[in-house]
Amino acid sequence: MKNTVICISREFGSGGRVIGKKLAEEMGIPFYDRTIIEETAKATGLAAEYIEQEEQHFNNSLLFNLSMGGHTVTASGIAFSNRVFEAEREIIESLAKKGPCVIVGRCADYILREHPDLFSVFICADLAHRVKRGIEHYGLAADRAEKTVKSKDKQRARHYRFYSDREWGNRKHYHLILNSSALGADTCVKLIKAAIEA
Amino acid sequence: MKNTVICISREFGSGGRVIGKKLAEEMGIPFYDRTIIEETAKATGLAAEYIEQEEQHFNNSLLFNLSMGGHTVTASGIAFSNRVFEAEREIIESLAKKGPCVIVGRCADYILREHPDLFSVFICADLAHRVKRGIEHYGLAADRAEKTVKSKDKQRARHYRFYSDREWGNRKHYHLILNSSALGADTCVKLIKAAIEA
Repeated sequence: MKNTVICISREFGSGGRVIGKKLAEEMGIPFYDRTIIEETAKATGLAAEYIEQEEQHFNNSLLFNLSMGGHTVTASGIAFSNRVFEAEREIIESLAKKGPCVIVGRCADYILREHPDLFSVFICADLAHRVKRGIEHYGLAADRAEKTVKSKDKQRARHYRFYSDREWGNRKHYHLILNSSALGADTCVKLIKAAIEA
Repeated sequence: MKNTVICISREFGSGGRVIGKKLAEEMGIPFYDRTIIEETAKATGLAAEYIEQEEQHFNNSLLFNLSMGGHTVTASGIAFSNRVFEAEREIIESLAKKGPCVIVGRCADYILREHPDLFSVFICADLAHRVKRGIEHYGLAADRAEKTVKSKDKQRARHYRFYSDREWGNRKHYHLILNSSALGADTCVKLIKAAIEA
């Protein structure tokens, strides 16, 4: 088996994380999610919870910066985000060197874009399905769930754009884009596995 | 087997047509490509060659319309395109009723968007691969091949947008998006088949 590193990007509520975890289990390779956050916490001295919400902080500060007319805000969240991003980059690069694995989110597909055995996947799903999942799995308030789902996607897209200068979810950057609400999570796992094995 | 209608949209030079043809052969179902053109020719009384190039005429007239400051041009290519589009729509709808099949291009995914067993696929590929294929398979002049490939994609996107009011190649509209230069045509066939059978 090659040193395939499978990077999964996903729309909020599409189940991309669950698909990645199951794929890693079926392939018998590590799934990196909390590990990256914990290692980043160690490297930066910041709380894991804070790092986990980094995209959100990033967006909040960016909006604050914009509302300030683009003036640099001292000790802004962008500086914090840069620190987290650089620490995560190092950790992701070192994990990818260890052997085949699955990494979800955190711009890993961009960070590892020169990796010879990168396999890049994007999971999307119909909005209604993601809203339903958001309510059932993430406890979103039903009356605000759609707004939250859309806002989370915007956050991810903005964060990804800032660090990669690429458009998040654009077909150009992925080997495979799967609609999990149309295909089902198990079929997504099966197809990614089949694509890699072929 | 359900009455699955597989619609394949594809970037120019991605090999989407070949993938569709092979898929239809492997699944033992009809592949509609020339049939649609020939039936449209019969229905409209226009030459098949002319219908085949309809997207191109559409774009030329659209540009002409735009250069005229948006004034309606009598007997313009847009009116011609509308006639072709309506005839194709009827033919595509009637073919889809006959049973499972593969249809490539011609906005079929949009025309059949309400079909209960529509399976919508988009095939993309890296630009360098498509330029190389354009030269080798379509006899494009090497020094202009990249420009031609990009221009063909723009034509397809503009044509699709005009009739569907959708963004061509946007992940929202497809069950599956495959990068054929990364995966290989045979793997694309295999994955589409596996997705449908699941």
